[in-house]
Amino acid sequence: MKVYGDSISGNCLKVKYVADHLGLPYEWIETSVLKGETRTAEFLAINQAGQVPIVDFGGGRILAQSNAIMRYLARGSDLIPNDPWIEAKMDEWLFWEQYSHEPAVAVLRFKIKFQQMPLSDIDPILIKKGNAALDLMERHLTEHEWMVGDRVSLADIALKAYTQFAEDANLTLTGRPNTKRWLSGVAKALTS
Amino acid sequence: MKVYGDSISGNCLKVKYVADHLGLPYEWIETSVLKGETRTAEFLAINQAGQVPIVDFGGGRILAQSNAIMRYLARGSDLIPNDPWIEAKMDEWLFWEQYSHEPAVAVLRFKIKFQQMPLSDIDPILIKKGNAALDLMERHLTEHEWMVGDRVSLADIALKAYTQFAEDANLTLTGRPNTKRWLSGVAKALTS
Repeated sequence: MKVYGDSISGNCLKVKYVADHLGLPYEWIETSVLKGETRTAEFLAINQAGQVPIVDFGGGRILAQSNAIMRYLARGSDLIPNDPWIEAKMDEWLFWEQYSHEPAVAVLRFKIKFQQMPLSDIDPILIKKGNAALDLMERHLTEHEWMVGDRVSLADIALKAYTQFAEDANLTLTGRPNTKRWLSGVAKALTS
Repeated sequence: MKVYGDSISGNCLKVKYVADHLGLPYEWIETSVLKGETRTAEFLAINQAGQVPIVDFGGGRILAQSNAIMRYLARGSDLIPNDPWIEAKMDEWLFWEQYSHEPAVAVLRFKIKFQQMPLSDIDPILIKKGNAALDLMERHLTEHEWMVGDRVSLADIALKAYTQFAEDANLTLTGRPNTKRWLSGVAKALTS
């Protein structure tokens, strides 16, 4: 399979983390958002939404949306809980990540670190949303070792993606010790 | 099961559509966003994110996020395609809906119809995003009867939720005949 991804994108790293952890072979085709490589006619012919990551499985089978890709690659593996209820709670976090975490934390990071927008131009509502998302995670992780169940799952990988870059977004993990502990645990679980 | 939902919310209607179609018994607890009923201490104790829909299955099992709820309720039913590849494409649309459709179409509808914000105060980027989402669907539905596979699935229900209210969002389905045809097909499939 061919993974079209930008190495600076947390959404793209999700695909890499899952494929590497499961030992799935793939070709990584570096596709830079900043260089406009997701807006070329060639790329738009593969994915009209002009987003990365996308995975080309051959035979016209192309899949977009990082969390949908992770779910497909990880089917039948221990990254998806066996228990239907815990799987449902994993899905709850996956949708929450795309609705309430990524649009704040990833967008702030992109504007500040990569577009080098001055902090004075950043919408304060975005910062409030980013902090609210990190606070909600910290409260959850105070009582739980993993996002769901008793081992690493796609919920942890989805939320690691941009939480690990919180400082780039001018947010901070200082004062969020359980989130830090959890990030170390996820990194360790993925490489073991 | 108890469904906490606001009848004017497309996200809440998704849960109703799935439960009704599958004949699952439930108690609907009307919870008005406009009246602040999702921000009471009582409601926040159930869901700290203060969002509807949520479903209480009893025994402390509470599930949020409309698309995660649909996926759980519909497990093992014909609303989720049997073929893993078509299921993956369904998930792609579910995540796309929450990232690229709902934050434009549902947010516009809420501001215009329910908060009665003057059109001159609406961010033009939001209107552009709403039209882009509807255009992408129209192009897809020109070549396909359903969002995925050869029958109604959760992808159709998720996208019916707010597409059916496009006019409330000051968007239009005029000039989008395939989307109109598809909406009729989904309504028919859900009630049959």
